[in-house]
Amino acid sequence: MRPSGRAVDQLRPLKITRNFTKHAEGSVLIECGDTKVICTATVVHGVPRFLKGKGQGWITAEYGMLPRSTGSRMDREAARGKQGGRTVEIQRLIGRSLRAAVDLKKLGENTITIDCDVIQADGGTRTASITGGFVALADAMRVLVEKKKVKESPIVAQIAAISVGVYKGVPVLDLDYPEDANAETDMNVIMNDQGGFIEVQGTAEGAAFTDEQMAGMLAVARKGITEIMDAQRVALLGQ
Amino acid sequence: MRPSGRAVDQLRPLKITRNFTKHAEGSVLIECGDTKVICTATVVHGVPRFLKGKGQGWITAEYGMLPRSTGSRMDREAARGKQGGRTVEIQRLIGRSLRAAVDLKKLGENTITIDCDVIQADGGTRTASITGGFVALADAMRVLVEKKKVKESPIVAQIAAISVGVYKGVPVLDLDYPEDANAETDMNVIMNDQGGFIEVQGTAEGAAFTDEQMAGMLAVARKGITEIMDAQRVALLGQ
Amino acid sequence: MRPSGRAVDQLRPLKITRNFTKHAEGSVLIECGDTKVICTATVVHGVPRFLKGKGQGWITAEYGMLPRSTGSRMDREAARGKQGGRTVEIQRLIGRSLRAAVDLKKLGENTITIDCDVIQADGGTRTASITGGFVALADAMRVLVEKKKVKESPIVAQIAAISVGVYKGVPVLDLDYPEDANAETDMNVIMNDQGGFIEVQGTAEGAAFTDEQMAGMLAVARKGITEIMDAQRVALLGQ
Amino acid sequence: MRPSGRAVDQLRPLKITRNFTKHAEGSVLIECGDTKVICTATVVHGVPRFLKGKGQGWITAEYGMLPRSTGSRMDREAARGKQGGRTVEIQRLIGRSLRAAVDLKKLGENTITIDCDVIQADGGTRTASITGGFVALADAMRVLVEKKKVKESPIVAQIAAISVGVYKGVPVLDLDYPEDANAETDMNVIMNDQGGFIEVQGTAEGAAFTDEQMAGMLAVARKGITEIMDAQRVALLGQ
Amino acid sequence: MRPSGRAVDQLRPLKITRNFTKHAEGSVLIECGDTKVICTATVVHGVPRFLKGKGQGWITAEYGMLPRSTGSRMDREAARGKQGGRTVEIQRLIGRSLRAAVDLKKLGENTITIDCDVIQADGGTRTASITGGFVALADAMRVLVEKKKVKESPIVAQIAAISVGVYKGVPVLDLDYPEDANAETDMNVIMNDQGGFIEVQGTAEGAAFTDEQMAGMLAVARKGITEIMDAQRVALLGQ
Amino acid sequence: MRPSGRAVDQLRPLKITRNFTKHAEGSVLIECGDTKVICTATVVHGVPRFLKGKGQGWITAEYGMLPRSTGSRMDREAARGKQGGRTVEIQRLIGRSLRAAVDLKKLGENTITIDCDVIQADGGTRTASITGGFVALADAMRVLVEKKKVKESPIVAQIAAISVGVYKGVPVLDLDYPEDANAETDMNVIMNDQGGFIEVQGTAEGAAFTDEQMAGMLAVARKGITEIMDAQRVALLGQ
Repeated sequence: MRPSGRAVDQLRPLKITRNFTKHAEGSVLIECGDTKVICTATVVHGVPRFLKGKGQGWITAEYGMLPRSTGSRMDREAARGKQGGRTVEIQRLIGRSLRAAVDLKKLGENTITIDCDVIQADGGTRTASITGGFVALADAMRVLVEKKKVKESPIVAQIAAISVGVYKGVPVLDLDYPEDANAETDMNVIMNDQGGFIEVQGTAEGAAFTDEQMAGMLAVARKGITEIMDAQRVALLGQ
Repeated sequence: MRPSGRAVDQLRPLKITRNFTKHAEGSVLIECGDTKVICTATVVHGVPRFLKGKGQGWITAEYGMLPRSTGSRMDREAARGKQGGRTVEIQRLIGRSLRAAVDLKKLGENTITIDCDVIQADGGTRTASITGGFVALADAMRVLVEKKKVKESPIVAQIAAISVGVYKGVPVLDLDYPEDANAETDMNVIMNDQGGFIEVQGTAEGAAFTDEQMAGMLAVARKGITEIMDAQRVALLGQ
Repeated sequence: MRPSGRAVDQLRPLKITRNFTKHAEGSVLIECGDTKVICTATVVHGVPRFLKGKGQGWITAEYGMLPRSTGSRMDREAARGKQGGRTVEIQRLIGRSLRAAVDLKKLGENTITIDCDVIQADGGTRTASITGGFVALADAMRVLVEKKKVKESPIVAQIAAISVGVYKGVPVLDLDYPEDANAETDMNVIMNDQGGFIEVQGTAEGAAFTDEQMAGMLAVARKGITEIMDAQRVALLGQ
Repeated sequence: MRPSGRAVDQLRPLKITRNFTKHAEGSVLIECGDTKVICTATVVHGVPRFLKGKGQGWITAEYGMLPRSTGSRMDREAARGKQGGRTVEIQRLIGRSLRAAVDLKKLGENTITIDCDVIQADGGTRTASITGGFVALADAMRVLVEKKKVKESPIVAQIAAISVGVYKGVPVLDLDYPEDANAETDMNVIMNDQGGFIEVQGTAEGAAFTDEQMAGMLAVARKGITEIMDAQRVALLGQ
Repeated sequence: MRPSGRAVDQLRPLKITRNFTKHAEGSVLIECGDTKVICTATVVHGVPRFLKGKGQGWITAEYGMLPRSTGSRMDREAARGKQGGRTVEIQRLIGRSLRAAVDLKKLGENTITIDCDVIQADGGTRTASITGGFVALADAMRVLVEKKKVKESPIVAQIAAISVGVYKGVPVLDLDYPEDANAETDMNVIMNDQGGFIEVQGTAEGAAFTDEQMAGMLAVARKGITEIMDAQRVALLGQ
Repeated sequence: MRPSGRAVDQLRPLKITRNFTKHAEGSVLIECGDTKVICTATVVHGVPRFLKGKGQGWITAEYGMLPRSTGSRMDREAARGKQGGRTVEIQRLIGRSLRAAVDLKKLGENTITIDCDVIQADGGTRTASITGGFVALADAMRVLVEKKKVKESPIVAQIAAISVGVYKGVPVLDLDYPEDANAETDMNVIMNDQGGFIEVQGTAEGAAFTDEQMAGMLAVARKGITEIMDAQRVALLGQ
């Protein structure tokens, strides 16, 4: 039924490459099928103004797509002079989700910026960014511990994300672009390793969705996230 | 338990005033407790470039807050020279939700812009904007029918929205600001009059939320939306 | 002779509602016929950089129109990314005029921002903003006195404003939109309660105006401002 | 009494140099004492969108100051990315004033842009811009007539401008910077050669001004403008 | 003498990977030592306004750096709302250089945009962008020929670029970041396969450079570009 | 052969007028034939953030063209809201070049801004800006010495610039606009009074240029710069 021939609850091949570039404290290439995102984590001492003197740190995220990461070229946002609404929405989601992984008090007055840059898009770039961003964040935290900038890792939860949807009436896992463009409903699910929800964003594209469809989407999401978290752990242990 | 003394599934007093200002095709003041939003609908012949020649119309939305609609004054976005991320996120949500009310083919090559301007904020401004925006949209559609710009009303569904959350561990309906600022989870639910979901956006603010809490939130949301839809219908029939 | 049937020196019905919204230190809805403006006054401790350490305060103003406050929808300035020339011109005028009401030394190092947001426009929005803004300013000053942030009220003059014009060759008071769009001359007059001029801005729209016409416009302006100042005083005493 | 030793109704030396630069249809250097402004007039066939198909032309103006035209360097507006409020206010005034010189119907579908660039500032730059801009405009009109783009000159009035003020309680003509910085009232007067007012903008800087002071200022303005118009005519006849 | 131990006229290892991403008509990853740039070429039918109706095409370029492509994180230009001066300078250079490779008449009314995005920076990103951009451009031209959009390839010259400099008084080839940061002179040389210069930009960073040093730099540049052109040809023939 | 009838190595008449405007520490009008640029130097105590506490000063430059300095009117960059790529490129070149004239340590924590504003353009505005900017800079340094803000002049080299090119196959000196628009190669050469190169920027506009042509261009440039430096010295000694 699916254009890719996958089972309804089957993820695309997932590959997480750490230390992808050499400068950042955390640098990850995440590949979910043909979707490829570079996620870097940068640590800077200090916090934004609204947190000055509160004895805590901050996690923020920025998101971008290379102009020709997509089928037809998009305008370069730097050249247009502003980030589009979709970009803003996505980077706020990534930041919120990854803050749920961290005890900001333990982080001290440090700010970690997660940059997620899509070099090839085929659906699911925002959830790939969260999943890959978590690994980059974990690497940056290791650097902080190694350099004794923090006493213990501020990581308090493992976070991963996946998109699900209703495609031809059926809940399916991990939509690629051909599915995403035709799905009746598109839902992004972000969870922690306790099985709790960090964020759920479901949008009816064509028809409204029912309680049953929502339950079905959440079930395949839960299965997918379990597998993704395994892949994150393997990547983080592997080096 | 609630700061306002309301029952967990009790809405704030809801008041919908049509024809609030005189120029717009649809003009609604919606008051949800102390949250007050002016929603206007403007009809313009023509469509955005990406829809040219496709024989359909478009619904879009813009959102703003008066600088002192809130407890401390916010910068005026026009003076800062850009809309903030939260504003962009909200106006995209309003537009998506209201497009689900309309058969864009029946609308013909007309564009309706829903402007939602918050004059006093006390929580739930985005869901109030959708609920009030639907009434303004319906009025604008009547104008189109009366002026014979469309054969029959392009409205195909009634849309309403409400915020719910987990407050002190309990799912509650229609958060006001004191609750919103302290809720563990905040969820916006947009539904149609068939009981289907148009959009569900749940965000864990502190702790992650469980399947049970999500079910509880959706249950109170469903009850609240039923009452809100009654209020919309009364308003639309009343004049 | 006038489209509204008013006498040449007759104001439109004027209504000033204090405490219109709940958050601001001063919040006024001013209605001049069908022109409706929300004026709020916000007090913040501190002054702009150019006044640091000079032992005085500052009064500034911002002005905006809801996109559909007018007959056809205007672009939202926040979305366009800049305030238009007319907006800039008006908010500079409001700020200048209201600073004439205040002894900035007595204000101490506090800044008061007057936000004037037009929710319905029918001519005379800038003068309504000044008249309503003065009442909001006076309320904010009371708050400063009550909270003992200043020893005595920094208000040193009462300020009000009105538009006058030459319509069909005759000086008339308080132009509404149909008159404004057809007037030969349009003049805004801002005065204090000693009968002195704070600002006079007269613009020939079609034909140039003569000394006699200017004298006639100033005469009706003086009469109108006397009535407006009565209304301000009644409003300020009434609660 | 005046810092410059001038009589209260005495202009600064006024010099108008036509053909100051070689490319523009009209190019004027106007020197009012130490205030020096380059005014050019550019003719382009076509009109702005809002005038398309109305069979008339348009006059518009832009104003700028070289960063070091003033005592301390101002930020370059092009580098800051926006024109300041004062600039916007001034260029709107110049455009409005010069449109009063022209029958826009006779101009046909042509747009004339008057660029006023201050190379040295010593008070009165906006009125110098109008006075010099009129001469540049007249030269551009001659070009249009010579090239037979219009049948007869669209100029229907001669326009000139001057600043006046109340300085140490006395109405004075043509304020230079030391006076302008200390005047109680500052007024810009734009008139035509029939003695009619095109625009009057008076602002109380310190104390409010009286009817008598306004009459005094208008009297010296009228005298000054008569002399300025003579200088314009001499310049325009001289070559 | 060189930090990397290379001979003065020795290039860093150069690797050119075609078809690096899947959507673009040309997509190249170029690696010059640790400098890594993704160069894509996008073909769009049509030309910019200034070329409308002239029967020719256009080549333009855009350049960006991922925020953490460098040792410390740079602000994201899309978030800052403008491209910096260095970015603008570089993308103009890339565009100019690559236009020298093409007969724009033969290209017809097509526009090719070369996007050069630096994912890891270690000196020489602008010359790597030109060298890699040429290969992406050549691939895009093949697509145009294959799709019969053009009769024959519009490529008329092979273009490559390299940085040279004076380091510790000696002309050296292909500066990496440690050299670049300490070079007395930095020069970018762009040549065609006839041995002609397309662009030469030499900048004294500390001391001025002499005729002899310029000759020395040009000599090593010529040697390097010969090798780089071999690598381009191998890459283009290899698949 | 040249449109102007000049010899291939002949400069246009060069005129340097110091103290052109009265406010700036250095103010120069430079005229190279019909190209006219006002160069001012402004001294401000303090340095940009990136130099704080390093015990050195800074030289920076800004460049602009009056909208009608050219044959057809260009958009005013302040009104467009951004400086174009060419402007950015030029002002970076001016700043770099003039920094080579100065020992920034001796300058102390002072910043000098060179503003170059073109009032009439006929080719070579960027090199005229550098040549004139050097004279303005030297004047500003004298002021610093006279006011005892620095012990001795921080000027360590004389800097001048000229454009050269290949026109009809022949290297020529000091291109005016008709030559510039048709030259095969355009090269800007900036040198110091020791005969060293500060910057060389050569661009093939049509055909690539050869080693011989480059040598020819550098030879005429060297001759021209010698004459220009004489003119700078005469100007600086003359008053």
